[in-house]
Amino acid sequence: MGNGRLTVGIAGGTGYTGAELVRILALHPHVEIDVITSESHAGKQLEELHPHLSGIHEHPLVKLADADLDSLDLLFLALPHRVSMKTVAELKGRDLKIVDLSGDFRLSNADVYSRWYGVPHVCPELIDKAVYGLPELNREQIRDASLVANPGCFPTSVILGLAPLLKAGLIEPSGIVVDSKSGVTGAGVKPKAGTHFPTVNDSFRAYGLGTHRHTPEMEEILSHHTGNPVMLQFTPHLLPVNRGILSTMVTQAGNVDGETVAQQFSTAYADEPFVRLRTEPPGIADVRGSNRCELYVMKDDRTDRVIVVSVIDNLVKGAAGQAIQNMNLMLGFAETEGLNQPPLAP
Amino acid sequence: MGNGRLTVGIAGGTGYTGAELVRILALHPHVEIDVITSESHAGKQLEELHPHLSGIHEHPLVKLADADLDSLDLLFLALPHRVSMKTVAELKGRDLKIVDLSGDFRLSNADVYSRWYGVPHVCPELIDKAVYGLPELNREQIRDASLVANPGCFPTSVILGLAPLLKAGLIEPSGIVVDSKSGVTGAGVKPKAGTHFPTVNDSFRAYGLGTHRHTPEMEEILSHHTGNPVMLQFTPHLLPVNRGILSTMVTQAGNVDGETVAQQFSTAYADEPFVRLRTEPPGIADVRGSNRCELYVMKDDRTDRVIVVSVIDNLVKGAAGQAIQNMNLMLGFAETEGLNQPPLAP
Amino acid sequence: MGNGRLTVGIAGGTGYTGAELVRILALHPHVEIDVITSESHAGKQLEELHPHLSGIHEHPLVKLADADLDSLDLLFLALPHRVSMKTVAELKGRDLKIVDLSGDFRLSNADVYSRWYGVPHVCPELIDKAVYGLPELNREQIRDASLVANPGCFPTSVILGLAPLLKAGLIEPSGIVVDSKSGVTGAGVKPKAGTHFPTVNDSFRAYGLGTHRHTPEMEEILSHHTGNPVMLQFTPHLLPVNRGILSTMVTQAGNVDGETVAQQFSTAYADEPFVRLRTEPPGIADVRGSNRCELYVMKDDRTDRVIVVSVIDNLVKGAAGQAIQNMNLMLGFAETEGLNQPPLAP
Amino acid sequence: MGNGRLTVGIAGGTGYTGAELVRILALHPHVEIDVITSESHAGKQLEELHPHLSGIHEHPLVKLADADLDSLDLLFLALPHRVSMKTVAELKGRDLKIVDLSGDFRLSNADVYSRWYGVPHVCPELIDKAVYGLPELNREQIRDASLVANPGCFPTSVILGLAPLLKAGLIEPSGIVVDSKSGVTGAGVKPKAGTHFPTVNDSFRAYGLGTHRHTPEMEEILSHHTGNPVMLQFTPHLLPVNRGILSTMVTQAGNVDGETVAQQFSTAYADEPFVRLRTEPPGIADVRGSNRCELYVMKDDRTDRVIVVSVIDNLVKGAAGQAIQNMNLMLGFAETEGLNQPPLAP
Repeated sequence: MGNGRLTVGIAGGTGYTGAELVRILALHPHVEIDVITSESHAGKQLEELHPHLSGIHEHPLVKLADADLDSLDLLFLALPHRVSMKTVAELKGRDLKIVDLSGDFRLSNADVYSRWYGVPHVCPELIDKAVYGLPELNREQIRDASLVANPGCFPTSVILGLAPLLKAGLIEPSGIVVDSKSGVTGAGVKPKAGTHFPTVNDSFRAYGLGTHRHTPEMEEILSHHTGNPVMLQFTPHLLPVNRGILSTMVTQAGNVDGETVAQQFSTAYADEPFVRLRTEPPGIADVRGSNRCELYVMKDDRTDRVIVVSVIDNLVKGAAGQAIQNMNLMLGFAETEGLNQPPLAP
Repeated sequence: MGNGRLTVGIAGGTGYTGAELVRILALHPHVEIDVITSESHAGKQLEELHPHLSGIHEHPLVKLADADLDSLDLLFLALPHRVSMKTVAELKGRDLKIVDLSGDFRLSNADVYSRWYGVPHVCPELIDKAVYGLPELNREQIRDASLVANPGCFPTSVILGLAPLLKAGLIEPSGIVVDSKSGVTGAGVKPKAGTHFPTVNDSFRAYGLGTHRHTPEMEEILSHHTGNPVMLQFTPHLLPVNRGILSTMVTQAGNVDGETVAQQFSTAYADEPFVRLRTEPPGIADVRGSNRCELYVMKDDRTDRVIVVSVIDNLVKGAAGQAIQNMNLMLGFAETEGLNQPPLAP
Repeated sequence: MGNGRLTVGIAGGTGYTGAELVRILALHPHVEIDVITSESHAGKQLEELHPHLSGIHEHPLVKLADADLDSLDLLFLALPHRVSMKTVAELKGRDLKIVDLSGDFRLSNADVYSRWYGVPHVCPELIDKAVYGLPELNREQIRDASLVANPGCFPTSVILGLAPLLKAGLIEPSGIVVDSKSGVTGAGVKPKAGTHFPTVNDSFRAYGLGTHRHTPEMEEILSHHTGNPVMLQFTPHLLPVNRGILSTMVTQAGNVDGETVAQQFSTAYADEPFVRLRTEPPGIADVRGSNRCELYVMKDDRTDRVIVVSVIDNLVKGAAGQAIQNMNLMLGFAETEGLNQPPLAP
Repeated sequence: MGNGRLTVGIAGGTGYTGAELVRILALHPHVEIDVITSESHAGKQLEELHPHLSGIHEHPLVKLADADLDSLDLLFLALPHRVSMKTVAELKGRDLKIVDLSGDFRLSNADVYSRWYGVPHVCPELIDKAVYGLPELNREQIRDASLVANPGCFPTSVILGLAPLLKAGLIEPSGIVVDSKSGVTGAGVKPKAGTHFPTVNDSFRAYGLGTHRHTPEMEEILSHHTGNPVMLQFTPHLLPVNRGILSTMVTQAGNVDGETVAQQFSTAYADEPFVRLRTEPPGIADVRGSNRCELYVMKDDRTDRVIVVSVIDNLVKGAAGQAIQNMNLMLGFAETEGLNQPPLAP
């Protein structure tokens, strides 16, 4: 481009994560969005679907098959699980960096994938090429990757909360109880009975007990990171809020005091621009709209348990913001570029 | 009374639990409210403070010292912790049945009380006389009691979810992780920074980690009920909803399958009018405004954990409704009298 | 019935108004629900769709064509507009009292109907037989009616707020500005993009400007009641709440003071069990779950305007509660029977 | 400053508008915040009160009397009404540009001020020096002003919606009905009974009928702008949302069609960066967190009324964002500098 900017595309730009990529990239100084695809809304303007995004992307939406991807430096895939891997397979061989926001390349094993996602993987040979895009764990591999599997929203909140303690051997790797609560945007833009306003408002429920696909993702990444098999009991819940995930993690710990635990976090995340240790339990509004993950940790000496609470915005650090953080690493920009907006509270 | 009704009083009628007693008793066929006390609003009509309660109680609020308690059959104490035990001590010797909704008589030991409540107990000699008012556990003792300690809201949701499994030895009594989420009415009627609308709305947070006073209450009641020492890790959270508690309980289980666990609940609660086992995880709106407790249980064979989810309305089964259930037992009425309103959803 | 109860049916029992009829009738002493129909959920139990209604109606849902209506004393039609009039036409000639909750028989003229509802009326000859079921205006006609057109939710809130002032000639009948705000249950049980939780939560919007079908209903009923042509500018809005309608009505008034206006309401509604004049502006939570309509009126001497604020629960006084109030009149019961539950707040 | 940035201060930085100034200015390229004052929280860090603002302003809060204002280029006053004018009076004579976010300098007449605000004005001689800071009306005067009275939140939403039509004589200047609905942040950061979460959530109410202080502000500015006396009937309401104002304005119009009315807006706001005409009624979430005002207009030919709907974020275009827009004009920056963040939705 004449102005020296690099160009990116968004495949599947009309869901919440696609829209969030557009919102955040609107202020990115070095990148511009060349193309946004939509299979069901091709021909429309993005702002017809997301009125808050008026005046940002002037081109109409196009079908992926009609999109000119040749000039792109990077493509975000904000597509459904199962659709995404097909697209990656079709794009194989092109010189195009990809950040895939689906779950299709997060698990390291095609068998595990098919067990939890219910379908065979269509391009198992590409799984090994994909780097798990959690910069706090895999920063250097991400810089060199051509295919990044952007982490799930729940796994981001959980892995950042447990990794330092597991790595340092301060807590037991099995018997970890993870109780997570998510805002409704995590369920997608499509109206369903379970996300109808009167069903959700002034209510609260658990779902997917023992069967949520983010379970093996968390276990695998944490096991790989620490070298010990990690087993979690993960229970997600649906909050009557738009955005945000709060995960409460209860772990067994032996001869460790609260100060040691807190110190471990301080050391691990000292140079991390988006992770912050709090001295009081954070609320999800404290990070709304931002790429931050905030953590609180305490040791209960009565029970010998360490409890960690983490909060993120599921659409930002849990999806689009983290994807842009990965993009910054892959394209050689400062990692925080375009991600410095303070949270919007209240 | 000429109409054959018994008369009750409410000490501390202007908080949420006091108001809820009035709302529910308005339809009770055998009881009427003779007096409602308030120290800070004496002289006002109740409906000035709670406009939805117009036309129910015609007498102005009076100070407790000015109330004529002689003709009452039963007195509800909806007073703050610490204040309540002083009132019970003052009323000692009167022939007056009492249901105390505070935490002052729930713990069986004055030392434990002073450790968790931060003050000495003023009438430790009365602790043994108090019956813990959870009818599903203590129905017969409640019938004969003159002083009932109405359970805490969190403990009601947790004890009903764990007691049958612990009693039957199907789960381990220690290492139980309890993650509870409460509506804001649980924090009382008085405005505080933490319950200011913009602070709570569209947000969510944990609080009181490791220090909540309902912890010893749950442990003590469950230990006593099952004969084994129970230890819990309890973490409460504040939901952006008005009413309701959902508790998620993760327990260790060995050689037990899901069907056995579900069967245990079915048997234990077969004749309980207010407890219902669900085949899908319930939402808190499913019980809003009613005296119901709804339970969901599942065994995760992958992890050998049993997970129980329970929901109640914190102001009804968690406070005023349960108090009236206790009153029905103490005064010889049908246990469900006045408590048959279906939930209000959505 | 052996127990002396009369029997009613509900056609279209799975929407919000159908479910609300079931909730309220559960406590009615003289009536029981014999049959509930559903075209799309026949064979299921009602509680599969509305878990809060467990244990109330034990029979499975049936299709209307399969329902035995012969033994019914009264049938509620909780069907969509256009479907309802077809059903009424089919039932013509039967000795069956009907309360129709749709808009199909509210307008007195088939031409006006077809202009606002977009289809011809299928049984214009029955329009004249239908009585508009607002007991505060038409109590005596309702007692004798066999077909009652239950008022719309917005019209109930507006007509009760304006009728006494218009009847007494205290305000101008034209140029009335009505700004109404409704909870989301008013949009029905079916999920749509506009009622998806993240679209509605923490937001607010106007809709249907100048085109809402309740406009001619309000104008016609008020004109007929007062003998003068009434013209309104009606603007509905969608609130991020489950239930409730608040209507703000601004009218021109000349030589009238605030006291006269308030006195007019007091006189008009002195004996009405469900209408109450407030001295402070009511909130919609003050009437939640109840059959009440609460009103506030003030004269602004600076502008010579009279402003009226009214609140109802759109599903109760605005739909199912009023339908039961009409049923009580039609079947000869006390008008308030089964409708005495206090509001649920907060 | 060494980096060429100008410096500003914020007096009263711990309320919602003060915090919002900090949030937005964090990304402003030419300005930095040198001092934030607080009388009640001096000595604390801002992030102790507003955790989302961590890492932005490193200096502790100071009392205004202890603040060094000499080096400042501009001071924002985010103080309560009545306090603000005293501060302006004390600062008189300093070479310091001021943007006052209170209501103390918005009215042009000290008598009108004292009638609506209930106290005499302490520096009536400064009223004439203050420029009403609505750039869309007063852009040039603001550039040269040393004291800008930042508009009220309701008036911003109303004046932008009515000014073009009144100026062009397309609607009647009297008999305008303004029905406004505001999020709870408009009521301030201090907890009160009326803003307690359970009071507001799932409810809705009107307040301040006929007495709200923004009434004379709107009337005066519009009258001055159009040369005709404007009279409004203004009714504010409290929405269960955090941010946002939606105003519905009903006006009388004669021989004008809908297209002419829409064209008038298009022309009037063609070059305005923050005002946008919509073809569908906007929701308040469409502008959340941004400095935008979005408008919808329609003519109802049936009633000869023109209805205008406007939405803003009360804390941004209704307060802090507009103050920064004014600052940009006063300090010679591009008007949109630092104000380009897209809205945060959902």
